[in-house]
Amino acid sequence: MELKATRYEVDGHVATVWLHRPERYNAWTGRMHTEYRWILADLEKNPAVRVVVLTGTPPAFCVGGDTEALASHAERGNYDTGLTADTATPGFGVRPEFDHDFSFQFGMRFPIIAAINGACAGIGLALALFCDLRFASATARMTTAAPKLGLPAEYGMSWTLPRLVGVTRAADLLLSGRVFTAAETAEWGLWNSVEADADATLPAALAYAQMLATTAGPNAVRTTKAQIYADLLRHDVGASITESKQLMNEAMATAEYREGVSALRSKRPPDFR
Amino acid sequence: MELKATRYEVDGHVATVWLHRPERYNAWTGRMHTEYRWILADLEKNPAVRVVVLTGTPPAFCVGGDTEALASHAERGNYDTGLTADTATPGFGVRPEFDHDFSFQFGMRFPIIAAINGACAGIGLALALFCDLRFASATARMTTAAPKLGLPAEYGMSWTLPRLVGVTRAADLLLSGRVFTAAETAEWGLWNSVEADADATLPAALAYAQMLATTAGPNAVRTTKAQIYADLLRHDVGASITESKQLMNEAMATAEYREGVSALRSKRPPDFR
Amino acid sequence: MELKATRYEVDGHVATVWLHRPERYNAWTGRMHTEYRWILADLEKNPAVRVVVLTGTPPAFCVGGDTEALASHAERGNYDTGLTADTATPGFGVRPEFDHDFSFQFGMRFPIIAAINGACAGIGLALALFCDLRFASATARMTTAAPKLGLPAEYGMSWTLPRLVGVTRAADLLLSGRVFTAAETAEWGLWNSVEADADATLPAALAYAQMLATTAGPNAVRTTKAQIYADLLRHDVGASITESKQLMNEAMATAEYREGVSALRSKRPPDFR
Repeated sequence: MELKATRYEVDGHVATVWLHRPERYNAWTGRMHTEYRWILADLEKNPAVRVVVLTGTPPAFCVGGDTEALASHAERGNYDTGLTADTATPGFGVRPEFDHDFSFQFGMRFPIIAAINGACAGIGLALALFCDLRFASATARMTTAAPKLGLPAEYGMSWTLPRLVGVTRAADLLLSGRVFTAAETAEWGLWNSVEADADATLPAALAYAQMLATTAGPNAVRTTKAQIYADLLRHDVGASITESKQLMNEAMATAEYREGVSALRSKRPPDFR
Repeated sequence: MELKATRYEVDGHVATVWLHRPERYNAWTGRMHTEYRWILADLEKNPAVRVVVLTGTPPAFCVGGDTEALASHAERGNYDTGLTADTATPGFGVRPEFDHDFSFQFGMRFPIIAAINGACAGIGLALALFCDLRFASATARMTTAAPKLGLPAEYGMSWTLPRLVGVTRAADLLLSGRVFTAAETAEWGLWNSVEADADATLPAALAYAQMLATTAGPNAVRTTKAQIYADLLRHDVGASITESKQLMNEAMATAEYREGVSALRSKRPPDFR
Repeated sequence: MELKATRYEVDGHVATVWLHRPERYNAWTGRMHTEYRWILADLEKNPAVRVVVLTGTPPAFCVGGDTEALASHAERGNYDTGLTADTATPGFGVRPEFDHDFSFQFGMRFPIIAAINGACAGIGLALALFCDLRFASATARMTTAAPKLGLPAEYGMSWTLPRLVGVTRAADLLLSGRVFTAAETAEWGLWNSVEADADATLPAALAYAQMLATTAGPNAVRTTKAQIYADLLRHDVGASITESKQLMNEAMATAEYREGVSALRSKRPPDFR
């Protein structure tokens, strides 16, 4: 696929994806959405890829729906995602709750780390909230945006945000649409790390991704990600425990486990091929 | 209704409700409960009202059940809410889980902001936890109170508190009934803002309410509040996303959305009538 | 039962349990598991016991599965808990979700407080996360350990940890298995208190346990613990409220409630027999 609104590269086990319409602060379009899904589907097929970092071409992360598109929705009086029927479906087919924009990220086999290097609003924030881990620049300005436009909480943000920061703080951001920064929310549980500025954000996320890709077993990471979201979607702690014991049993028959134990006993770093 | 234990006023789009038995530190009675519900039902009928602030006539917010009533329960050996069959039912009829004291606040069409200006205990705390947003005086003393009286967690507090501050901290407050302050719990995710003292608390809550009433679309706020509690009561993230896209579609046909987009494109504040 | 890998003592209303293989940093074995369950079953039968504190014989809390056992799993290619059919079942029979290692702790009649005095890893951390309250030494080093061994999240940790610290921070610890300290995570909502060093940890937990055992009604504490986990396992806030009102009604017929109200009105500490 010819990429106009995104770009990506793979370096060893770590892939980086850029939302890439810098002249429009990476505002979201149907084209960008289509390309983003195509890239993720491509990465999922690449066995070398263990971790993905999502960021924006400076100076922004993603300021939400393009204002031209917003105006066109207003003229037409309804919402058009701009997707076509042949859009790629990465992460789909795992379970019905994940066959949606952007819960499909929960269904993917690798962790996706958001590196929020600049302004992040509306659908851009929704996208970041469906990532597994989040790094942000202290000075990045963010907003749910929706209530200031007369819109409801977009793309499941009323589901994700309370589970990330608790109901009280989520209600503030969702009801008001006020602008906030990563610095101001540094201790809210929304960020794995807040970096000093935009330039430091992607490198910090990449360093974490590299650590994850080399020091944790790739099967273990894949399984653990699936466990986290399965358990987020169920009350039955007993079923979670039963499943975890079954998964432990299966993992103990693998070369990955043998390497992990061998490295532990030899007090050397594991070498997960 | 003649109001003896409460009072309220409406100023533009913002209503303020006071628990008002200052000589008893606003201790809760059946009479207060009846009046409180009548006021909320009255405000829900008033289309001008977009946000409600709940506070106490100084020096307290609400110290919980009146000790006279507690003693009378002990003499009788059972609990009497003191409500009559014709008590108003604001927020009822939205969904069965909200047809209860005080989850009916989740069903109301406007956000309710607690402004905790002083002592807050027992049922007073339960009431505050069912509000959507919480402002508190740093020096306000609070307690679940129940375990020190030989009582279980009251009015669903064992449901709300873990969802607001996590299980670990909720277990501390619920099991021990120890006294805590807003200052001590400032970073727990329980408060949207902690103010320097009692006098600063109501003004801070009113300023936020005014911001919410004028800069966010009223339909958007109403819809977003409903989304937050619908999503808190379900695991299905896919259903949340599907619903949010349907609600976006509906909102895009409204004058509120057209005004929001027009204001954004003209870089002027929106004027939500 | 002859105790080789654990020890315990009862002092008034508070029991202390030690994981006790200090020469192996209290590494977990089937023997330790069997003894631990036997002790809890014994304490549950002792009506004097109102609170239990779980700690490790210095210098560690519990470093997880013994490396000899891990190697033996790798040789055999599957997982063996080392339990026998006649292992005690404390907390079992309350509800099916609690008939598992270690959610049975949710079903027990008294709070269990973890006092993490030193290194805490793998199954040792899982055990601590199923406790009701957690005290930790600032310098204690901890890790989920699993991903570095090629293992999935163990014993329901992917269920408990997100409910204790939110999804973002839980994903970091679960996916990476990186080492963290209590000091570094002091504000995450994982700890009720972080103590200056290992020596201060058990005394702090015991002081809290003593406070809980003497100033809160024992029936109230037992009921409140059951409410917390019932409500963590259900969306229906209305059912929680209905149940809490029924439980209040029942409690108001008890001597414990009469003593609580009498003490409140006389402004004296309650004396819960």
